[in-house]
Amino acid sequence: MRTQIAIVGGGPAGLLLSQLLNRVGISTVVLERKSRDYVLSRIRAGVLEWGTVELLRTAGVGERMDHEGMPHDGCYLAHDGRMFRVDFRDACGRQVMVYGQTEMTRDLYAAQDAMGATIIHDAEEVALHELDGEAPFVTWTHDGKPFRLDCDFVAGCDGFHGVSRPSIPKEVRREFEKVYPFGWLGVLSHTPPLADELIYASHERGFALASMRNPNLSRYYIQVPLTDHVEDWSDDAFWQELKRRLPEEVAERLVTGPSIEKSIAPLRSFVSEPMRWGKLFLCGDAAHIVPPTGAKGLNLAVSDVHYLAEALKLFYSSGDGSALDGYSEQALSRVWKAMRFSWWMTTLMHRFTEHNAYERRMQDTELAFLECSAAAQAVMAENYTGLPY
Amino acid sequence: MRTQIAIVGGGPAGLLLSQLLNRVGISTVVLERKSRDYVLSRIRAGVLEWGTVELLRTAGVGERMDHEGMPHDGCYLAHDGRMFRVDFRDACGRQVMVYGQTEMTRDLYAAQDAMGATIIHDAEEVALHELDGEAPFVTWTHDGKPFRLDCDFVAGCDGFHGVSRPSIPKEVRREFEKVYPFGWLGVLSHTPPLADELIYASHERGFALASMRNPNLSRYYIQVPLTDHVEDWSDDAFWQELKRRLPEEVAERLVTGPSIEKSIAPLRSFVSEPMRWGKLFLCGDAAHIVPPTGAKGLNLAVSDVHYLAEALKLFYSSGDGSALDGYSEQALSRVWKAMRFSWWMTTLMHRFTEHNAYERRMQDTELAFLECSAAAQAVMAENYTGLPY
Repeated sequence: MRTQIAIVGGGPAGLLLSQLLNRVGISTVVLERKSRDYVLSRIRAGVLEWGTVELLRTAGVGERMDHEGMPHDGCYLAHDGRMFRVDFRDACGRQVMVYGQTEMTRDLYAAQDAMGATIIHDAEEVALHELDGEAPFVTWTHDGKPFRLDCDFVAGCDGFHGVSRPSIPKEVRREFEKVYPFGWLGVLSHTPPLADELIYASHERGFALASMRNPNLSRYYIQVPLTDHVEDWSDDAFWQELKRRLPEEVAERLVTGPSIEKSIAPLRSFVSEPMRWGKLFLCGDAAHIVPPTGAKGLNLAVSDVHYLAEALKLFYSSGDGSALDGYSEQALSRVWKAMRFSWWMTTLMHRFTEHNAYERRMQDTELAFLECSAAAQAVMAENYTGLPY
Repeated sequence: MRTQIAIVGGGPAGLLLSQLLNRVGISTVVLERKSRDYVLSRIRAGVLEWGTVELLRTAGVGERMDHEGMPHDGCYLAHDGRMFRVDFRDACGRQVMVYGQTEMTRDLYAAQDAMGATIIHDAEEVALHELDGEAPFVTWTHDGKPFRLDCDFVAGCDGFHGVSRPSIPKEVRREFEKVYPFGWLGVLSHTPPLADELIYASHERGFALASMRNPNLSRYYIQVPLTDHVEDWSDDAFWQELKRRLPEEVAERLVTGPSIEKSIAPLRSFVSEPMRWGKLFLCGDAAHIVPPTGAKGLNLAVSDVHYLAEALKLFYSSGDGSALDGYSEQALSRVWKAMRFSWWMTTLMHRFTEHNAYERRMQDTELAFLECSAAAQAVMAENYTGLPY
């Protein structure tokens, strides 16, 4: 088998890249380790930057998002039992769109199917070869049978645990990491969301987030120690703890219900440099992980894909490889700024056992300053809604 | 002896408070442990917020400052061998004034002398009494003879090591502290300043600051380990190290000369709450210490003095003690925001041995973000030029 771009990973990053390339006649094959049902069962992010929204429209997959997605003009920040709102539109003229990653992935599958794109599921033992040569290829097995795909380039969109990043020799890679000493316990439930916009709450007992996927699907999170197990958290215990951490004025409005998904995710900041090695280009979680505070993970994958798609289009239309050569630096520049924002927001809103009284007070002061400074709100808004590509 | 306000400490905070009160007919006595010559020999801060500038004018001590001071519209931030400028005027419409604390103190002495104010120098063994009663008084000795001053209120303007803060019972005080693992080695020299504005430099070898007091008096600093001794730093070694940490384009313009003052100051963030106890009100360093990055120390003392002077004026003009009751909360609200800014700028610009690669990269990214974000520059500018009173 032969294609121009072998795309390893059939999550939103790989599918979007395939979609953007197919639309301009660049051939792709997407290889996914799991089944389509499995991919669509993963509960992930739900807040799209406006640049992501616009790119999805450009890619021809914006129709249902524009119909069912919920544009948000701001969000709430709660602390000390009360809350204030940051108006993104006022602060920087942009919005975000609440639309689940699962829905976006579904739309991409539908669009790719309609275009007759090649998406191979249940591809096992994927391996990348000759990445530093002129004739790279990818091998895998399917039902025990071996396959080979020759290509011009490989796009590694296979996430943190995928094979792409480790295919770059260790001595070439530089890794940056910060592990946070807590996780997020998340609950999804068929209940109306607590508020019209997201509520990020800083509380003595730990961070809480009231989020949503649609008007009857709520997503809530609370900060928990990494030693907690999800089995130890009954739905009741979760709802009680969530209520404690939200301002009373909103907590009393909380509609609870059975959880349809409950899990604990650790928080981590991670970047691997470079994002290009030979014929391999990394996109999204394959190269970097952000803590979920500020909802940057999916959006960063999308901006990587945007840069790579543009670079490939330039190369195939004119033979100009300069944008491919500059991909890593260009993508990383935006990645690091999003890392900074996610780290800032995580550090601002969570309780750290290692903080002394001074450092705790710095958190409170940062929130108090944010509440009263239009410039500080503009900084938050321009990052939250997405820095320009 | 009797007065309305006993002011402990004859530095800029105590003198300015005395000046503001005397002008509206409130009587004061200033007690200073050291001689006037000693006070005027201390080399301290040199950057005044615009609110400080305006308050000095209001206090009738702005004439020489307006003549000799140097208004600065911005500052430079250097990193990775190059630098960019933050324009305070563009970013927030305000400026700062470069005018040495020593000069400001000199002006205050002159104005106080002209008004016939009582400033007692070489007051030893100062002690505060009956602060929680109706008849507070202050005792001291002079040339071995005991003295007593009865008063309505005591203003503690006697700095971090003064007697005022420890006169508040330990069980009433809450202290917040962060000690930084490095200090600033500072050199004052009769040389023309390196640039028209201050240069804050982040460098692999540590922070450096090119500052000034007047057109022929430069003030430079470099970050050094706390284990360094000033005796180990020759002038030559200092200039060489400073040059290494500045961008080449400016380092080659550096005019060196013999140091006329050279010292190492540790960096510390410290706040003691409350700032009022009974009849005692703390102002400035007596209640809080900021690291020098961002030049907030003197300016915070001035805003404390402003709040206290206004509260005392209200009390003596109408008997309304509400502003005195609210002094601590009002002053602390601004103090904490300045602590936040000083901590941010210190953390941004210095090298911390405990930082891992990720945290180092966060510093670089924060600077890169600051360089490209008008909103982030506005946040810096509004803090650097001084948040509103």
